[in-house]
Amino acid sequence: MANIQPLGQRVLVKRLDADEVSAGGIVLPDTAKEKPQEAEVISLGTGGKDEDGKTIEFTVKVGDKVLISKYGGTDVKVDGQDLLILSESDILGIVS
Amino acid sequence: MANIQPLGQRVLVKRLDADEVSAGGIVLPDTAKEKPQEAEVISLGTGGKDEDGKTIEFTVKVGDKVLISKYGGTDVKVDGQDLLILSESDILGIVS
Amino acid sequence: MANIQPLGQRVLVKRLDADEVSAGGIVLPDTAKEKPQEAEVISLGTGGKDEDGKTIEFTVKVGDKVLISKYGGTDVKVDGQDLLILSESDILGIVS
Amino acid sequence: MANIQPLGQRVLVKRLDADEVSAGGIVLPDTAKEKPQEAEVISLGTGGKDEDGKTIEFTVKVGDKVLISKYGGTDVKVDGQDLLILSESDILGIVS
Amino acid sequence: MANIQPLGQRVLVKRLDADEVSAGGIVLPDTAKEKPQEAEVISLGTGGKDEDGKTIEFTVKVGDKVLISKYGGTDVKVDGQDLLILSESDILGIVS
Amino acid sequence: MANIQPLGQRVLVKRLDADEVSAGGIVLPDTAKEKPQEAEVISLGTGGKDEDGKTIEFTVKVGDKVLISKYGGTDVKVDGQDLLILSESDILGIVS
Amino acid sequence: MANIQPLGQRVLVKRLDADEVSAGGIVLPDTAKEKPQEAEVISLGTGGKDEDGKTIEFTVKVGDKVLISKYGGTDVKVDGQDLLILSESDILGIVS
Repeated sequence: MANIQPLGQRVLVKRLDADEVSAGGIVLPDTAKEKPQEAEVISLGTGGKDEDGKTIEFTVKVGDKVLISKYGGTDVKVDGQDLLILSESDILGIVS
Repeated sequence: MANIQPLGQRVLVKRLDADEVSAGGIVLPDTAKEKPQEAEVISLGTGGKDEDGKTIEFTVKVGDKVLISKYGGTDVKVDGQDLLILSESDILGIVS
Repeated sequence: MANIQPLGQRVLVKRLDADEVSAGGIVLPDTAKEKPQEAEVISLGTGGKDEDGKTIEFTVKVGDKVLISKYGGTDVKVDGQDLLILSESDILGIVS
Repeated sequence: MANIQPLGQRVLVKRLDADEVSAGGIVLPDTAKEKPQEAEVISLGTGGKDEDGKTIEFTVKVGDKVLISKYGGTDVKVDGQDLLILSESDILGIVS
Repeated sequence: MANIQPLGQRVLVKRLDADEVSAGGIVLPDTAKEKPQEAEVISLGTGGKDEDGKTIEFTVKVGDKVLISKYGGTDVKVDGQDLLILSESDILGIVS
Repeated sequence: MANIQPLGQRVLVKRLDADEVSAGGIVLPDTAKEKPQEAEVISLGTGGKDEDGKTIEFTVKVGDKVLISKYGGTDVKVDGQDLLILSESDILGIVS
Repeated sequence: MANIQPLGQRVLVKRLDADEVSAGGIVLPDTAKEKPQEAEVISLGTGGKDEDGKTIEFTVKVGDKVLISKYGGTDVKVDGQDLLILSESDILGIVS
């Protein structure tokens, strides 16, 4: 499968279908202007650097289930999967 | 119940129904363009860091009743509860 | 009565009716796009911090009569009183 | 007469009628989108502070006749006089 | 004649009529969305200060013929002359 | 063939046709508001400098297959090829 | 001919007609929302200064053929020639 390395503080995530929601049973509303959705982190970006040249760490890690805003980021379809590249700052939270 | 860990300076709050308003009897107007609402803080974000690398403290704490602007943040429904993820800077005040 | 502690550089003020205007007889125009109004400061926010970690002082104090822009801030009704939470930087001046 | 102490870098000015224009005979156009007007400085704000904590000086002083943009600032009527609270940075120039 | 002292980095300029264009024969297009015009610098502002407190020098000087954008700045009519107060950064170039 | 040297942090890329997509079989959706596309990096810009005067390195290199947003950058046609000049920060990721 | 000295980081360029395009045969599309065009650099601005007071160097030089965005900058007609004053940062690349 093709590999996508996101640039900078971006992450690559895979949208989760309704039947893939977490065991806790999160149901995401389908009507709000800004609909959140669950997704799984596939890969992290090349990262950014702070003012002292140190690489800024990502808070999320590969495999995390995250809540994202429906209209953030850019959709990419890879090998039939709906993927999304978005900035880590557009991830609302981690579901566990 | 599923757990949601907000990222960065975000907090997770639970909207309070009218019959859950504080003993002091705050009635929130339903007509203004930007309607404030009462909510209870459920969990705090992973936090941010200031320029010296020190974690920025949250002013609110879990269990606080807070006033929020109706249109701020992103709604999430978890186990039948209306939750909201919003930046702490969008919390107007703490009700006691 | 319920107590509201504004967050950060916000202040809580109580709008003053026309018959509560200052002795000096300030009459506020009712037609301008941005109508100023008189209000009394009820409580100060938790404050912010400058770059050296020192708390930023408020210029206004509880009890001050202030001029505010009509459309700034967020209205809150507490125990029948029209209150308003707004940033101190949106206060135009102090009336004495 | 009621006293208004502007906050921060704001100043309080009194609009000058056409028959109060400066001896030099400045006539201000009445058609432009952004109409300048003459006004007299009534009082200076509480001032701001620079990064070293030193108070930033005002360039205008009480009594100065100044040119202001018609739509800047906020109108206040005090004891029958048309006053205006605006940021010093919105004053275009001093007339002498 | 009334004197106008522009504030900060602003300059006061006098629009030049078509028959006052420079000897080189610059003809300014009358159709573009943002029409440049020739003007002569009448007076310089009180200036600004850089981070070390040193006054920032003006690049233009009194008497310079300059190209300005038609819609920048604010028109002022003084003793029958069309004057304009604008920021030096809105001057496109000096004609010689 | 004419050579184009992008300025600053810009890069010059060549859009890839559908039959030029990577072996992994990435199919890009044609309906989204912001359609990503695959492109190949042709040349890097002259670069920028950080606060210490050091040249900022590019993360992508000539020959990289990258994902770009359809509406970012500026199209240029050179010798019959569809090229695009865009900021490196508008490149979403590298495909391998 | 009249001389125009651009201010700051601006440059003065002369638009090139289609029959003046570079030998490499760059054909610029005429339909895109933001149409790039070829131009030749006529003169450089007075320059800006960085935080240490050192003059910032221009990357382009007089005589360079450059690609510019059609809607950037301000048109000026001098002695029958279509000239344009624009910021160097709006130049996309150098053609050689």
